[in-house]
Amino acid sequence: MTRTIVVVSGGIDSTTALALYATYGHDLTAISVDYGQRHLRELDAAEAVAGHYGVPWRLIRLPELSAALGGSALTDPGVAVPLGHYADVSMAATVVPNRNAILANIAGGVAVAMKADAIVLGVHAGDHPIYPDCRPEFVTALNACLAVANDGYHVPRVEAPFVHQSKTAVVALGARLGAPLHLTWSCYQGSAIHCGRCGTCVERIEAFTDAGVDDPTEYGQ
Amino acid sequence: MTRTIVVVSGGIDSTTALALYATYGHDLTAISVDYGQRHLRELDAAEAVAGHYGVPWRLIRLPELSAALGGSALTDPGVAVPLGHYADVSMAATVVPNRNAILANIAGGVAVAMKADAIVLGVHAGDHPIYPDCRPEFVTALNACLAVANDGYHVPRVEAPFVHQSKTAVVALGARLGAPLHLTWSCYQGSAIHCGRCGTCVERIEAFTDAGVDDPTEYGQ
Repeated sequence: MTRTIVVVSGGIDSTTALALYATYGHDLTAISVDYGQRHLRELDAAEAVAGHYGVPWRLIRLPELSAALGGSALTDPGVAVPLGHYADVSMAATVVPNRNAILANIAGGVAVAMKADAIVLGVHAGDHPIYPDCRPEFVTALNACLAVANDGYHVPRVEAPFVHQSKTAVVALGARLGAPLHLTWSCYQGSAIHCGRCGTCVERIEAFTDAGVDDPTEYGQ
Repeated sequence: MTRTIVVVSGGIDSTTALALYATYGHDLTAISVDYGQRHLRELDAAEAVAGHYGVPWRLIRLPELSAALGGSALTDPGVAVPLGHYADVSMAATVVPNRNAILANIAGGVAVAMKADAIVLGVHAGDHPIYPDCRPEFVTALNACLAVANDGYHVPRVEAPFVHQSKTAVVALGARLGAPLHLTWSCYQGSAIHCGRCGTCVERIEAFTDAGVDDPTEYGQ
């Protein structure tokens, strides 16, 4: 059976990726990374989603990373989370430098150790304008780096099934596959409920609306 | 002034790299990663070496990584550290999957955040037979991946000044530059003194001897 590690953030994209690979029948492991994100709620969501599928969940913490990275609205309480549209230039404040390379390489090490065949990232096309580490070129370069860094071992390939799909398409697929979208967390603010105003909340609301899927989320606004 | 991050393990190679870039006059930061290595003594050595040069030292911990990677003699107390020559096939037991990609990508994130110009890895040619993530192809692929993952930002380049040099050559340079080799730690066993019998101790002894440099190390054997 194909053995696959899904990097789960607790959001819609990685949850739908987990649903997709569960449908494929792969032997799954979920990995989440605590890089000091302000919205730690998403890690609870990640655990709940993995539990929904009965998939082992591994949390890897990097307690000092956010202080060392500093300056991102996602990790630094001193930087305001920008409100507005997900593709706005202002959302660059939410970039965490090299984040997906750190996450994916940790998953890569675990994958090599487990002799897993694949690592799945839930990046999607709507991420491309702001986040360079969500683009197809990144996935290609990451695959090349994993291959040489682990030459002679069982090298996993990195798959990004939604890298050319919109968030709306991902929500549509998630709903069709019965993914537990009600368990997911998007909001960057990390309060008790989704704020409804930050970039990722706005994107979430739009995607459910455009996909014609009932939105199970409670929003502050 | 060129701003450079040196990934310091506390061993001879990264200490000599720090000495080299201090000689170049760069504005230096030292980063060490605690990935659960058995030889935590090397992190004390890393801190001491950074202190010797008056360079800020950042420690990034990954408390759950070693359990997730499992099975390497460097991180799993249930796996014996192989004794013998550093280039022996038996030393493959000390491979930590994707280790340098994880370390270098963490340093890469910090470098982007700091707008550093370079990241320095102390890998050398003697590492090549056993450790794929110490080879020139890895350095090339890592540079390519960092560039796309951080496109539009200040992308640091990865430099590996010793990637084509022997350990003996590195010891010779370290001694010539006055690097504090007496502060360094190599032994994989992580006891009070160097065991003198594991692969990296054998390599250390050979390198000092072949370089004609007095070895300041106390060995168990």
